[in-house]
Amino acid sequence: MRMVDVIDKKRQGGELTAAELQFFVDGVVQKTIPDYQVSALLMAIYFQGMTAREQTTLTMTMMNSGDHLDLSPIPGIKVDKHSTGGVGDKTSLPLAAMVAALGIPVPMISGRGLGHTGGTLDKLEAIPGFQVDLSEAAFINQVKEIGLAIVGATGEVAPADKRIYALRDVTDTVDSIPLIASSIMSKKIASGTDALVIDVKTGAGAFMKQTADAKKLATALVEIGRQAGLDCKAIISDMNQPLGHKVGNALEIEETLDLLKGKGPADLLELVLTLGSEMAVMGKKAANREAGQKLLEETIADGSALAKFKQMIIAQGGDGRVVDDYSLLPHAKDQVVVTADRAGVISQLTADEIGVAAMLLGGGRQTASDQLDYGVGIEVHHKLGDRVAVGDPLFTIHSNQADLTEVKALLAKSLRIGDQAPRLPLVYEWVD
Amino acid sequence: MRMVDVIDKKRQGGELTAAELQFFVDGVVQKTIPDYQVSALLMAIYFQGMTAREQTTLTMTMMNSGDHLDLSPIPGIKVDKHSTGGVGDKTSLPLAAMVAALGIPVPMISGRGLGHTGGTLDKLEAIPGFQVDLSEAAFINQVKEIGLAIVGATGEVAPADKRIYALRDVTDTVDSIPLIASSIMSKKIASGTDALVIDVKTGAGAFMKQTADAKKLATALVEIGRQAGLDCKAIISDMNQPLGHKVGNALEIEETLDLLKGKGPADLLELVLTLGSEMAVMGKKAANREAGQKLLEETIADGSALAKFKQMIIAQGGDGRVVDDYSLLPHAKDQVVVTADRAGVISQLTADEIGVAAMLLGGGRQTASDQLDYGVGIEVHHKLGDRVAVGDPLFTIHSNQADLTEVKALLAKSLRIGDQAPRLPLVYEWVD
Repeated sequence: MRMVDVIDKKRQGGELTAAELQFFVDGVVQKTIPDYQVSALLMAIYFQGMTAREQTTLTMTMMNSGDHLDLSPIPGIKVDKHSTGGVGDKTSLPLAAMVAALGIPVPMISGRGLGHTGGTLDKLEAIPGFQVDLSEAAFINQVKEIGLAIVGATGEVAPADKRIYALRDVTDTVDSIPLIASSIMSKKIASGTDALVIDVKTGAGAFMKQTADAKKLATALVEIGRQAGLDCKAIISDMNQPLGHKVGNALEIEETLDLLKGKGPADLLELVLTLGSEMAVMGKKAANREAGQKLLEETIADGSALAKFKQMIIAQGGDGRVVDDYSLLPHAKDQVVVTADRAGVISQLTADEIGVAAMLLGGGRQTASDQLDYGVGIEVHHKLGDRVAVGDPLFTIHSNQADLTEVKALLAKSLRIGDQAPRLPLVYEWVD
Repeated sequence: MRMVDVIDKKRQGGELTAAELQFFVDGVVQKTIPDYQVSALLMAIYFQGMTAREQTTLTMTMMNSGDHLDLSPIPGIKVDKHSTGGVGDKTSLPLAAMVAALGIPVPMISGRGLGHTGGTLDKLEAIPGFQVDLSEAAFINQVKEIGLAIVGATGEVAPADKRIYALRDVTDTVDSIPLIASSIMSKKIASGTDALVIDVKTGAGAFMKQTADAKKLATALVEIGRQAGLDCKAIISDMNQPLGHKVGNALEIEETLDLLKGKGPADLLELVLTLGSEMAVMGKKAANREAGQKLLEETIADGSALAKFKQMIIAQGGDGRVVDDYSLLPHAKDQVVVTADRAGVISQLTADEIGVAAMLLGGGRQTASDQLDYGVGIEVHHKLGDRVAVGDPLFTIHSNQADLTEVKALLAKSLRIGDQAPRLPLVYEWVD
């Protein structure tokens, strides 16, 4: 088989066979196919797309190119959640604790943030002592014992994806739905979960700016999951404005704990209950989502979700006292408040600029090797549609740096006060 | 400027600016842009195409990336001819001699063959002693003195094209009209000619299988030429069956000499007169093509074209006696005749298979470094539509090798005897 013929077939709109995709993935991993041919195929895939069968085959082939976990030692139906990434999106943290509190094992493999979006592992590492790098055995053992662990990938997961992803970034082939879908799912399937809910974000702060594109991606993800034998469902949710009120690693741990204590922001709670209700159904603890939602609400009311979260912190080496004493979390030196210079209704609040502002403060990474400053971030005091008076606080900048010019400019650009606000649903729809 | 942004603009169908194309070409020549980004842009160009302005700008930028000739020391209007390549296509040889015999300077820079198509330089090198590698000064001097020289490129012409072409070959982006057109024209414009006729081949033995694609390419080539200030016209001509009766380097010199002696094959003569009549007009020796054709016919009748060809052979170090004594040309050891096994009309005769057969005999190159066997080749005794009886010779294989299995199989595949033949024009149309 020659790579140029594989490129040609796809360029002309053909469907690649399992043998051709295997040849491609093998060549990527063994480096027998040069970068320029890989990138030519990626661009051809961008233009010609892939059939459902191709996407699934590519995903499974990439998955099989690396290590994958066997979670069968953990009894019960294991459920996991994945998000395509957003600003202020700490959903996984309270969600995992609440679902685990129902007795459903949650072996969650998460990632780090890059650019304007945050990463679950970074947020957890804001907790003093918290370890995300567990061995496979320790990971499985913890889920068996307390029903919950949130860790980074163990072993070499989907090495084909690693090389392809690096090339996509520099060859403008990132936003191809079959390539995004196979990248996400090859890693998720390798994690060994039985069931998966996926939160596909749409809007200004999301990778998918258009809801129609988000829907296409969600459909592709669910289809691949199903083909791979996973119980898989997705929602499309809004990421025009940030989720909750806090953006920044330690700040988001605070908001997580607030939610688990019954005083979380309404939007975050709604999203957690939406995703969690389906996970409760998948985990056979509820007959339907309504019943699942009730059970989850009880885990907050009775404190069992907060207890589960604390149990996980301690199990992973963290300081469990943070649950009751937020002063043990890292905090920035300065709190600078930005106030409204006119009265009106918040008519625009764009998540991506706020995410970039938090990144510039040191809360996120511009490049993968950047060190994080866990205490910094942005408090967003309002939501779209809120009415404000002159002098009302809009943002509180938690900062360790003297020059806030760029951060303030970004925040000023993100928020507009007008006469009326667009009405955006938080959850657009289920894709299942 | 970032290459990924240039790729993105083209991928989304945008028109690249002169600055962006300059950045690309500079990066290609200086190797600051990696192969994988070059190939991603090439694939995006394949899918999105280029506007006339982009094609011209890319061509001029590639041309300016290397050496270009100044032919102003040669008085008169210099004319040149380019062909997209075919089987048995020795047109340039008699054409150049005939046009030069009219007193029009012909400084022709030609190429070598690759794959199933032959190259003008290879054919000339079948003449003992013939040199195609002249210095720029010697080249200009010869055209000044005798009005004709056919040489390989002097200096480093369009180095950007060299790297791009190598990548196109392995990334399945060869058949993109803007890329083909800019590759051809960057080199042709660098050759310093004033006027250019282009023979765009179409059919089974041509790169452009469809006449509509050939027309698109011809239009792009003429448009770029015009924008670059060249007097430029093109024809679309047939390359379903080979041109003339001989395929192979020395064999094609014989057929060239036959034509210059007034006994050439009709199709070759028609093509030479078609192209040459326009070159006579371009060179201001004829008011129109009809008049130009008459003048060219006279150069055969009065022997001036043959004398001009002989003069060139001698000027470039070749043995001028070959003109009268073909035995001084290299000849293959064996002549194997393939005969008709049924009676009928030649209903199919596909140039590409005959071209590959000649290549396998050693008359062409599979890779650029292959050595040629100048004496070998295929005589094609008939044309489409000819009537043959059982036992009539179809091909004579001129060979130095024992095993002709593959060659014979290709020839058998190329020719079919049936009841009727398709009627194909030799020249489809002028594009000007």
